[in-house]
Amino acid sequence: MNRTLAALAALSLVSVSTVAQGQAPSLESQADAALKGDTHAWDFVEGITTEVGPRQAGTEAEARARAWATAWLTAKGFANVADEPFMMDTWVPGDIARARVTAPFAQDLVVLPLGDSAATAAGGIEGEVVFFRTVDDLRAAPAGSLKGKIAYISHQMRPAQDGSHYGFAGPVRWVGAGIAASKGAVATVIKSVGTDHHRNPHTGGTSFPEGVAPIPAGALSLPDAENLERMFDRAGGRPITLKLELNPRQIGQTQSGNVVGEIVGSNPSLPPVLLACHIDSWWNAPGAFDDGAGCAIIAAAALNVARSGQPLRTIRVLMAGAEEVGLHGSVAYSKAHIDEAIAVGLESDFGADRIWRFDSNFLEANPALHRRIAASVARFGVSTSREAAGGGADLNIVRDQKGALIDLQQDGTRYFDLHHTPDDTLDKIDIAQLRQNVAVWTQVVGILADESTSIQTGGPIPSAPAIMQRQ
Amino acid sequence: MNRTLAALAALSLVSVSTVAQGQAPSLESQADAALKGDTHAWDFVEGITTEVGPRQAGTEAEARARAWATAWLTAKGFANVADEPFMMDTWVPGDIARARVTAPFAQDLVVLPLGDSAATAAGGIEGEVVFFRTVDDLRAAPAGSLKGKIAYISHQMRPAQDGSHYGFAGPVRWVGAGIAASKGAVATVIKSVGTDHHRNPHTGGTSFPEGVAPIPAGALSLPDAENLERMFDRAGGRPITLKLELNPRQIGQTQSGNVVGEIVGSNPSLPPVLLACHIDSWWNAPGAFDDGAGCAIIAAAALNVARSGQPLRTIRVLMAGAEEVGLHGSVAYSKAHIDEAIAVGLESDFGADRIWRFDSNFLEANPALHRRIAASVARFGVSTSREAAGGGADLNIVRDQKGALIDLQQDGTRYFDLHHTPDDTLDKIDIAQLRQNVAVWTQVVGILADESTSIQTGGPIPSAPAIMQRQ
Repeated sequence: MNRTLAALAALSLVSVSTVAQGQAPSLESQADAALKGDTHAWDFVEGITTEVGPRQAGTEAEARARAWATAWLTAKGFANVADEPFMMDTWVPGDIARARVTAPFAQDLVVLPLGDSAATAAGGIEGEVVFFRTVDDLRAAPAGSLKGKIAYISHQMRPAQDGSHYGFAGPVRWVGAGIAASKGAVATVIKSVGTDHHRNPHTGGTSFPEGVAPIPAGALSLPDAENLERMFDRAGGRPITLKLELNPRQIGQTQSGNVVGEIVGSNPSLPPVLLACHIDSWWNAPGAFDDGAGCAIIAAAALNVARSGQPLRTIRVLMAGAEEVGLHGSVAYSKAHIDEAIAVGLESDFGADRIWRFDSNFLEANPALHRRIAASVARFGVSTSREAAGGGADLNIVRDQKGALIDLQQDGTRYFDLHHTPDDTLDKIDIAQLRQNVAVWTQVVGILADESTSIQTGGPIPSAPAIMQRQ
Repeated sequence: MNRTLAALAALSLVSVSTVAQGQAPSLESQADAALKGDTHAWDFVEGITTEVGPRQAGTEAEARARAWATAWLTAKGFANVADEPFMMDTWVPGDIARARVTAPFAQDLVVLPLGDSAATAAGGIEGEVVFFRTVDDLRAAPAGSLKGKIAYISHQMRPAQDGSHYGFAGPVRWVGAGIAASKGAVATVIKSVGTDHHRNPHTGGTSFPEGVAPIPAGALSLPDAENLERMFDRAGGRPITLKLELNPRQIGQTQSGNVVGEIVGSNPSLPPVLLACHIDSWWNAPGAFDDGAGCAIIAAAALNVARSGQPLRTIRVLMAGAEEVGLHGSVAYSKAHIDEAIAVGLESDFGADRIWRFDSNFLEANPALHRRIAASVARFGVSTSREAAGGGADLNIVRDQKGALIDLQQDGTRYFDLHHTPDDTLDKIDIAQLRQNVAVWTQVVGILADESTSIQTGGPIPSAPAIMQRQ
């Protein structure tokens, strides 16, 4: 534990579970107070970005982040704090990432590798670039037509409040390299899947189909991608050649882990409320928005609920490891805990801008609770809808149990300006919007944690998880 | 000449000087047309950023940029196009720029060298960081107090429409490293002199006093600088150590040059109107705002004036080389041409956002002309003031001649978000504001070029430059 956390521990002498019900402020006033002046969330996200920074899964940096979070949760008075380890295959980006147009115009382009990219030969590879305006155009290219070529794949992603353009443009990154490789391409570069105009590429995972050998796969920053496209306009049909050098590599199995902690309920035999986020980030991203803020919000909400009196149910925070690189933490957590019923799962993993909508997957099965929660957060500017909540990436356990899920939808307009880039830094967090998140989470989690009937149905609490009952 | 420029040349068969006075649109309508739809300026800045990009003075990239500009001016029909060479001392940045906080928290920081920085030893140097909140705090540090230390110098620069915070914060970069070196520091890192929050440091020149050996001097991006400052807050007095590795070097004398071209006036014996910009950029900056836009604006204005009929005076454009690294082009141009009287000088070198004020240095000596120009640009949202115009960096010749100067003040609110960074890319240019610049320049240059009396005094044209008359 470092000095900062020791100091925090000293401040936490009054454990979070010791506030007696009678003396405590109401849940509503606690949520209102969070809106005005929550300090827990900022302390977490400022701390982890300042003292740790980028923390790629399976590396020593993520291990430091897990130790930091474990110490923070302990210092804040969480119970049953643990770092539950698991093993995973780990890819690292290397330290060379260069791209240069060599003809007909000479210019360096800013590039970073995508997760699971292969390396180029030392010194780089050079090839003619074939321009695809969309991933569908790439899909339509004839078999073998990219032999010896470098595929460049573009898109027209735009900012969207609900983030839905990630689904629109994301396949460029998710499957573009694999499709290009299957048609003979020696490498792929994509326009970063993002919405900003800074010279910082957006990385993220890519994948290759069974039987297709990985090829070098990079992301250009959006200004560089647009420059490359203008070169095609100005080249008048002359071939554009690119030299690309990347040296990522697979390093085999390494350890990651899931950090957990609890506010213990007065009836610990009831299924807990599970609040999830992820602790890892990509190597290039300090992870303020993705997902330091999410961990900050869920932990702050748990602490604020506890300050309004011990809840009926246990509130468990899950700061999952290795989300970015393939949801390994979510899978490992579900595997390890599938027999422990979860009452309801909620995740924060979409930045720190304001929550604007509450969705659940129990509107039809438990309409009274859905409406009560919706009414409770209206004062924070949060509406509701008939969309069924699907839960965040780290809630595999709840999906595997076919359990109750809530999505507290955040404004994602700025999210893909920062996602998976070096620009994902603390200064991007608007503390007023961060506090609105904490206030909404405090209100919602407080209601859920004091619910004595089944959240999913409004009926009696089932004696075992749904997944077990169905067996 | 490449194909693009060959195509442009084909489009320019009607030379700019062939429009007969009677058939030509009025100057006013030509300026109004520029506001609505000028294409020359965009063509220049899009072309040079796409086909050349970064172009540091004295390097092969600047030589390519000068050749590109020469070909563009020729294709557009300018007369007397030339690239006037001069020699200069050249510093290059190298290819290693790494900074890592090693204790008490481990984290990489994004750094770039400042112009004229020394190199570190191979493998880097490590030292305790001493934090100075202002350059005045650094000045106040006792002699010898930085022995073996790395100085970190901060500032509180804010965006300002008139760009005046560059003067407020600029000394951190201009003299910080030299002061630190004189007090024994082994290296300096500064908070970038800029106003954005992206992970792209702002480079720029630094300097060392006579007798003080240069030390390694880097700029951190603003988010990294703020992170370093937060580390001081969180370190509780523990020393913060930084490892820095930079490998810039001086490569001796290389060639740069000044690109010039003219719209020849009907009375070429009258002193010309000189329009200046600079063709070079820092190695890390594609130079859209600084100063591709400036060259685009002046060249477009000259072309638009010519389309309204042959002017009385010659209009000369000067795209100076080697501005960034010490105004070498401006100095060389004045030295070579000091005996040729210049009627008036104007420079565009502050981005591409709208012009909001017209200043001259002849308000008292030639108030009628000052007022006529001010009235002519009011319709474009341009006011005037009693501030005396000082002229841009590349107008040394006019200052040396004690001649007439005009400043067309641009909105600099965004300028120091981009200045000397990789983010200085084409997408930052708002074409509507770029066109307002061209419109204002067209109007002003058109008036100046048809002025038959002395611009400086309203009296007879002097027979020799002021500097010659005084001898």
